[in-house]
Amino acid sequence: MGMASVLVAGVAVIDFVFRVDEMPRRAEKYRATDADIVGGGGAANAAVTVARLGGRAVLATRLGDDAIADMILADLGREGVDCSLARRFPGKRSSFSSVFVDRQGERQIVNYRDMGISFDADWISGLLPDRFDAALADTRWPQGGPAVLNAARARGKPAVVDAEAPIGEAMATIRAGTHIAFSRQGLRDFAGHDDMRAALGQATEATGAWVCVTDGSADVVFHAGGAFGTVPAFPVEAVDTLAAGDVWHGAFALFLAEGMGETDAIRLANAVAAIKCTRFGGRAGVPGRAEAEAFLRERSAAA
Amino acid sequence: MGMASVLVAGVAVIDFVFRVDEMPRRAEKYRATDADIVGGGGAANAAVTVARLGGRAVLATRLGDDAIADMILADLGREGVDCSLARRFPGKRSSFSSVFVDRQGERQIVNYRDMGISFDADWISGLLPDRFDAALADTRWPQGGPAVLNAARARGKPAVVDAEAPIGEAMATIRAGTHIAFSRQGLRDFAGHDDMRAALGQATEATGAWVCVTDGSADVVFHAGGAFGTVPAFPVEAVDTLAAGDVWHGAFALFLAEGMGETDAIRLANAVAAIKCTRFGGRAGVPGRAEAEAFLRERSAAA
Repeated sequence: MGMASVLVAGVAVIDFVFRVDEMPRRAEKYRATDADIVGGGGAANAAVTVARLGGRAVLATRLGDDAIADMILADLGREGVDCSLARRFPGKRSSFSSVFVDRQGERQIVNYRDMGISFDADWISGLLPDRFDAALADTRWPQGGPAVLNAARARGKPAVVDAEAPIGEAMATIRAGTHIAFSRQGLRDFAGHDDMRAALGQATEATGAWVCVTDGSADVVFHAGGAFGTVPAFPVEAVDTLAAGDVWHGAFALFLAEGMGETDAIRLANAVAAIKCTRFGGRAGVPGRAEAEAFLRERSAAA
Repeated sequence: MGMASVLVAGVAVIDFVFRVDEMPRRAEKYRATDADIVGGGGAANAAVTVARLGGRAVLATRLGDDAIADMILADLGREGVDCSLARRFPGKRSSFSSVFVDRQGERQIVNYRDMGISFDADWISGLLPDRFDAALADTRWPQGGPAVLNAARARGKPAVVDAEAPIGEAMATIRAGTHIAFSRQGLRDFAGHDDMRAALGQATEATGAWVCVTDGSADVVFHAGGAFGTVPAFPVEAVDTLAAGDVWHGAFALFLAEGMGETDAIRLANAVAAIKCTRFGGRAGVPGRAEAEAFLRERSAAA
């Protein structure tokens, strides 16, 4: 096969990141010691990861018709993400966030979303690419998630869900997945308790899907065919975990799209996310394919 | 005379304004209930005020060469501000701020400035407009302030300083003014104490200039020819005081540029600033000339 292609649906934003000596706590004026403007959003971060790892990423997302949308699209264009399904809604505003990072690396995020942008996703079906090898959806677009996942299922392709909390409005997305990768917080929100293995069992029962849970630097636990398995994470000196989950999901979806088995896909996705965490700048730290594979070889040899 | 023209030197920024139910105080994720992207910066706010009041505004300012500069210039262009002295510095970043506003109207500002942009202002002299009727400088550009104020003095025109704290690096700007309008905080910083009349006397002694102090909704106190005077502020139901001082200074400089006496200029500037404070959105609330004059007539008749 040629380059594998992943259709990703969900959120794209711009983060205005301010470095501060101390986290602002009062209604006063503060001066940032440094700042950066970086693209973010779960689906956009995953799409950038797919592109950096050598796949083709097509991003379906809802934007306003404003200067923020210009910034989002220019950045994704530079990353090689296909934005033909990134739709601008006239008169609406794109999502953006203020992110404060203090000297301890603590992070405060204030996000704005224009709730006036239609959640409808019927327009996607007429614009789907002729061919794609997997779909990936976050939990932030209740109609868009099922639209791309069902399109993947109809083609016999993996339909991956990045199941982050809050799960409430995303149940249709979760039911449409062939592979549901929960975060710890997402799984807790889904199950209503914190017993991970029991919760994974419930998730399999409710969906019939392959399910797993990622938990920061802890091992990935999956449940498939009635059995549990774990894939170890790679210990690294983490300096920035921003977007690590999104990056992991983009990598995992691409590797499934390429035909890799789930366990191998998890292992390489763990490598990609681990490398990202060793660098500042959110998704700017996502490695290329060769670097990720070299890291995996090196760590496997050491084990 | 035709349309009066004011040359303004200082800061132009973009504010990302988030409305929040409560002021964020922890390193967590918050959701804004609303947001807005508005132009700000002392000199830029003053220039917009000049243009809205029917004057010609030429803004000298230092920008980066980035998407923020695009936003700043597009917004000022829409307001009719002449940006031929707004210089973009290659490889540098424009200034921007995160502003949180809670339900009580309390405001927290985190501002970023690229300290790598040269403060040099020698380039201004070759680009000055053929004719202008006043100059206005804020305290944020130690070389740019004197450059435009001295150019005004050389033409026998009013040279107005918006003397906001910190005053420290702006002493050359303050010494170049014919009219120094302190904020309360700026005057305290200049004099080292809080006795306003004594401080105004010191300021006259140090500069030989006409001096005054604005203090939010309190009366304006001025000192000129060895005597003190006051001009009453107009009581209004204030909903947003953001940029009120900048707006006042832009109006005051324009009215002096038109040949108005200081007391009349203060009175009409008080009206402009009072109207602004009755509306949300920072400088978006600056009125046009006819509205300001009607407000002044109405309040004068009522008195």
